[in-house]
Amino acid sequence: MEHGHIYRPFDNDLQGLKNRLLEMGGLVEAHISEALRALVERDPERARRVIEEDRAVNRMELAIDEQCVRLLALRQPAASDLRFVAASLKIVTDLERIGDLARNTADRAIALCRWPPLSAVVDLPAMGEAAQRMLRDALDAFVTGDAAKAERVLAADDTIDRWLATVFQKITSEIRRDPENVDRALSTLFIAKHIERLADHVVNVAEMVLYVVRGKDVRHGRST
Amino acid sequence: MEHGHIYRPFDNDLQGLKNRLLEMGGLVEAHISEALRALVERDPERARRVIEEDRAVNRMELAIDEQCVRLLALRQPAASDLRFVAASLKIVTDLERIGDLARNTADRAIALCRWPPLSAVVDLPAMGEAAQRMLRDALDAFVTGDAAKAERVLAADDTIDRWLATVFQKITSEIRRDPENVDRALSTLFIAKHIERLADHVVNVAEMVLYVVRGKDVRHGRST
Repeated sequence: MEHGHIYRPFDNDLQGLKNRLLEMGGLVEAHISEALRALVERDPERARRVIEEDRAVNRMELAIDEQCVRLLALRQPAASDLRFVAASLKIVTDLERIGDLARNTADRAIALCRWPPLSAVVDLPAMGEAAQRMLRDALDAFVTGDAAKAERVLAADDTIDRWLATVFQKITSEIRRDPENVDRALSTLFIAKHIERLADHVVNVAEMVLYVVRGKDVRHGRST
Repeated sequence: MEHGHIYRPFDNDLQGLKNRLLEMGGLVEAHISEALRALVERDPERARRVIEEDRAVNRMELAIDEQCVRLLALRQPAASDLRFVAASLKIVTDLERIGDLARNTADRAIALCRWPPLSAVVDLPAMGEAAQRMLRDALDAFVTGDAAKAERVLAADDTIDRWLATVFQKITSEIRRDPENVDRALSTLFIAKHIERLADHVVNVAEMVLYVVRGKDVRHGRST
């Protein structure tokens, strides 16, 4: 034993980190769909389970952060391995916030069960599925280093923005038609905003893929 | 020269990193106040300057990330120094998103110049100042390692939540009174939501202070 180094090959450490990121991604993806299903099926119990299980997401964040820091300390990775670990520190934060947004959606779903649903609710599950698909692809691109797939995730974000515009339109007409609807209309709109923000976190993940794979930063390249 | 190491003391590297984080924090703080001033003074030119200058924030993010990765590669910091660099990688992302939220506020301010202001607008500058103060304190706590100050930042977040509740109340009454106001009412509400989200990013910064100082993670400890 030298300086407490662990004598597994570094590839095993990296694979362990990738597996944990995928596991955390799978969990937050399930939370998105469960929260939206709770909304559509008007099932507050299902929503409460999402809120309860968000603690597991938070624990995963702490564990992965610790794993990254330990990896940096003990293995001193270089070049693309170092970039992968640095990017993982950022990605885990995005995954945790996606989990928070799923939990916020579940909170709103519980509140919305008290009122009859507005028509805009029907768009939310499909919007959520598009975001989930982006998340799955972005994480898959991250662990396999697939830059082309990451690029497709970046392009898919436009779909989410169009969906938000549609929901916004429906909600504001709904409020104009009956201003007494304003509370549930805004709760419905906030769920659409949660999905949009969640997709923004997925975009960050996809940008990190390009950073790791290409060794240069592509963030802000599209807008600045 | 050995492995390309730079023979300045490591403290200088860390001080350089701290200075850059403070500089970036100062810039996004200025963007928050300028965006809100543009809103209140109905000055779209001022708002456009915030949007334009957000590019500088984005460039700072990339430069600081690169500095962190270089530091990890060349200096191989250990213990609290390693935690400081890992935390900086996360904090810089929070600062960048605070900058984005200031830019989004500026976008909304431009749109709102077209309509007469709603009464809820008067609360936004004070709400924004509270968030700016939190940001200043959190970054100061980060670079000086002041855990007590970081704790005070965490406590201050309640003020922001109360402010959001007040604005939300005013906005929904405004919509009920005149549903034709819905577009500018929602734009005003979204600015309050931007400030709340921005304060959430500040909370992340404050939590990172406690992580670096105490060597253990306090995130999620308050809610889970």
